[in-house]
Amino acid sequence: MSEVETRKPQSRLQEQFAQINDLLQRQRQAEELLRRHGGEHKRVENLMQRQNRAELQRCLDGLHPADIAYILEALPLEDRLVVWQRVKADRDGDILLEVSDAVRESLIADMDEGEILAAIEPLDSDELADLVEDLPPEVLPELMASLDPQQREQVQSALSYDEDQVGALMDFEMVTIREDVTLEVVLRYLRRFDELPEQTDKIFVINHDSVLTGVLPLKWLVVNSPDKSVGEVMARDVNTFLPTDDADDAAQAFERYDLISAPVVDGGGRLIGRLTIDVMVDRIREESESEALGRAGLRQEEDIFASVWASVRNRWSWLAINLVTAFLASRVIGLFQGSIEKLVVLATLMPIVASIGGSSGNQTIIKIVRAIATDQVGLNAIWRLWRKELGVAFFNGLIWGGVIGAVVALMYHDIPLGLVMTVAMVLEQMLAAVMGVGIPMLMLRLDRDPAMGSNIFLVFMTDSGGFFIFLGLASIFLLH
Amino acid sequence: MSEVETRKPQSRLQEQFAQINDLLQRQRQAEELLRRHGGEHKRVENLMQRQNRAELQRCLDGLHPADIAYILEALPLEDRLVVWQRVKADRDGDILLEVSDAVRESLIADMDEGEILAAIEPLDSDELADLVEDLPPEVLPELMASLDPQQREQVQSALSYDEDQVGALMDFEMVTIREDVTLEVVLRYLRRFDELPEQTDKIFVINHDSVLTGVLPLKWLVVNSPDKSVGEVMARDVNTFLPTDDADDAAQAFERYDLISAPVVDGGGRLIGRLTIDVMVDRIREESESEALGRAGLRQEEDIFASVWASVRNRWSWLAINLVTAFLASRVIGLFQGSIEKLVVLATLMPIVASIGGSSGNQTIIKIVRAIATDQVGLNAIWRLWRKELGVAFFNGLIWGGVIGAVVALMYHDIPLGLVMTVAMVLEQMLAAVMGVGIPMLMLRLDRDPAMGSNIFLVFMTDSGGFFIFLGLASIFLLH
Repeated sequence: MSEVETRKPQSRLQEQFAQINDLLQRQRQAEELLRRHGGEHKRVENLMQRQNRAELQRCLDGLHPADIAYILEALPLEDRLVVWQRVKADRDGDILLEVSDAVRESLIADMDEGEILAAIEPLDSDELADLVEDLPPEVLPELMASLDPQQREQVQSALSYDEDQVGALMDFEMVTIREDVTLEVVLRYLRRFDELPEQTDKIFVINHDSVLTGVLPLKWLVVNSPDKSVGEVMARDVNTFLPTDDADDAAQAFERYDLISAPVVDGGGRLIGRLTIDVMVDRIREESESEALGRAGLRQEEDIFASVWASVRNRWSWLAINLVTAFLASRVIGLFQGSIEKLVVLATLMPIVASIGGSSGNQTIIKIVRAIATDQVGLNAIWRLWRKELGVAFFNGLIWGGVIGAVVALMYHDIPLGLVMTVAMVLEQMLAAVMGVGIPMLMLRLDRDPAMGSNIFLVFMTDSGGFFIFLGLASIFLLH
Repeated sequence: MSEVETRKPQSRLQEQFAQINDLLQRQRQAEELLRRHGGEHKRVENLMQRQNRAELQRCLDGLHPADIAYILEALPLEDRLVVWQRVKADRDGDILLEVSDAVRESLIADMDEGEILAAIEPLDSDELADLVEDLPPEVLPELMASLDPQQREQVQSALSYDEDQVGALMDFEMVTIREDVTLEVVLRYLRRFDELPEQTDKIFVINHDSVLTGVLPLKWLVVNSPDKSVGEVMARDVNTFLPTDDADDAAQAFERYDLISAPVVDGGGRLIGRLTIDVMVDRIREESESEALGRAGLRQEEDIFASVWASVRNRWSWLAINLVTAFLASRVIGLFQGSIEKLVVLATLMPIVASIGGSSGNQTIIKIVRAIATDQVGLNAIWRLWRKELGVAFFNGLIWGGVIGAVVALMYHDIPLGLVMTVAMVLEQMLAAVMGVGIPMLMLRLDRDPAMGSNIFLVFMTDSGGFFIFLGLASIFLLH
């Protein structure tokens, strides 16, 4: 009895990655030598290259498609294509499914039509549907022609849903049984399969109209007596989804009820597909990533080694908006140019007020956006949240405004200036609280994603508001 | 054959939540009336209250513990405790496991010792270990005394690991078999169980020393002939984890290899526990949330209805640091007070430079932090990343610096001022790029979490750097 081969996933992968990087570097050196010395040592270096390539291939063959995808993501374009060319063709499809959109694009651009068709041939309908959008349009007719009618219908059905809907994420690999047979019959039926679909934790019970009547978890199948009928054992209270349901809601349900797979039914209760936890986990990850990216104003996930030009385009719309808001905020300062001329220290102190307002508003907004995302607060909670956040803002303003006011009063031997600073900080904190609750709530009211762009608007309000409050108070109390 | 009862999870839950909120409001109104009218209508209102309470109870009894947890999270403290008191005692433990730390604290504070012990009595060892930290210390001796030796050992073992380690997340509910028996025997053995543990997709194969030799997925158990032996069918190449492995690495492995459960073994390969996907999904969600919260400077998840005082404490350390950095940045402006006195428009324009630098630096940092978190870039990539980000920064600076420079030149009829603005924007963008790559890389080098606090430092650098670049250039080229 030999011990199991244990895999330490992360560290093992890192080792493989280091080894592949090493091979790639040796390859580059060999090419460099070859170029520099011309034909002189050609034979030797050619041999080296061939050995390198064989070793690279061996390395890749031992890796899981997800690992290869990971390595492709982490390599700059040139190295990425070297590795991609060494991957066995029959694994191309699985790997294309695993990589991010940006990397997928770069890989497909490197393949010819025949390679693409060969790569996607072994895929299931739902996987095909995931890739179709990224394929060059000229391969589509041939691809569709190669499918059987059922597959073609499935691909078209999956494509007919929005990517935020359950229909776009479901697969079609289901094992179905009838409820009037015994578990013994079910077991015999299952033994006719070579393999059950991935992530099969339950089989679906349907009637003669394909209407779902229950589910039979494998766990229950194996612990119950084989003489019992499916109908006696199965669960009738099932979490089902419609293909038009929101994908994030479905992901939340998977998380909340610890689901592994769940049936998708049409309006008449007929079983049409299946959702699985692996797809939902990817969804949860993507959702939180796109939230983080959206907050920073990145339009889409950016391949870390994307070209400079692609990155400039991805980022500039945000910078353009930011430029406009920063310009408008600076016009507020322009209004008080006369006051600053008389008391130039105001120019020094005003960014402090604006900056603190921005960061505490951001703390509020992140909490509210999160609570909205999980449906924990609705529009009706706005007054309660305002009351609370205003309380927090008032205390924080008083404490930190007091500290900075005292520092300013001491530094400039000017107690009124310190008092203005303290009062401005309190008011700015309260403005930030009002905005931090109000902006995401307004977005919700307008039926928009509360995360997207709420930050720009907040910073605009806290910057211009902070400048206005501080310079306005100073003009009134210090200059007259 | 009746149709399955389909549950639309999210909308159903929202309805229930609305209904419960409604009941709570009626309850409050009844209490209010009772107080206002004194004894007058006492009997009627008492009856109303009782009806309300019964209806609330009925509502709650129909809900999944995770749903009740969700509702408790979404209610302000007072209402939360009303609901909590109506929850059947035997479900308290499951619900406590589902709620966030902040809410858990508020619920436990409302229970007496007896209630707490009764609530946690039905829990498994790993679940107990999750709760122990939040329990009042006075119940611990009695709790530990109520456990059998094996459970006590398991709880202590789980507690001995850091919460970021696999050991703190594993459970102990495993079904184990020997590899020399047939599948027929395994099936007969499993039928002796009433139920298999949650999330059981495979059973673990061990030898007489408890060393893991393979795993047998239920899927494989049911499709293979019962005459085969476990050893013939089982998988020997298994993803295993050590209890000391990093929990986030484990979560990534679950995501990458689409695992549902995986064995945890000790250094000698002996099976000691099990990781399951539901725990990993929670981990993935928490990880991304704490990243988002950490970025905004919130020390911990904050109950949305936490008291003002708790919120002030949670947020103020960040504000204190921000105050210091904002103050230091303002000292940079102080250096150029003379220049601002001579040309007060500089005070108007300087925040534009700083603001754009801050947001593009933030875009860079978020990308780098993400790539580091997924191990896609290491320290050796820093030069390549710098080169690329500097390219992006140069173009963005030139484009938007050019735009704002032209606007400024036209507004103030001052071409040199416009040119200074443009050059300052380009330099500021490049500073932001250097910092956006450099700061998280430095954190990585120092073995710290690159997300935590990298933003404060970035904003400090882009603010003070932006002020310095712009005011410095202006002093040199416009005032001499």
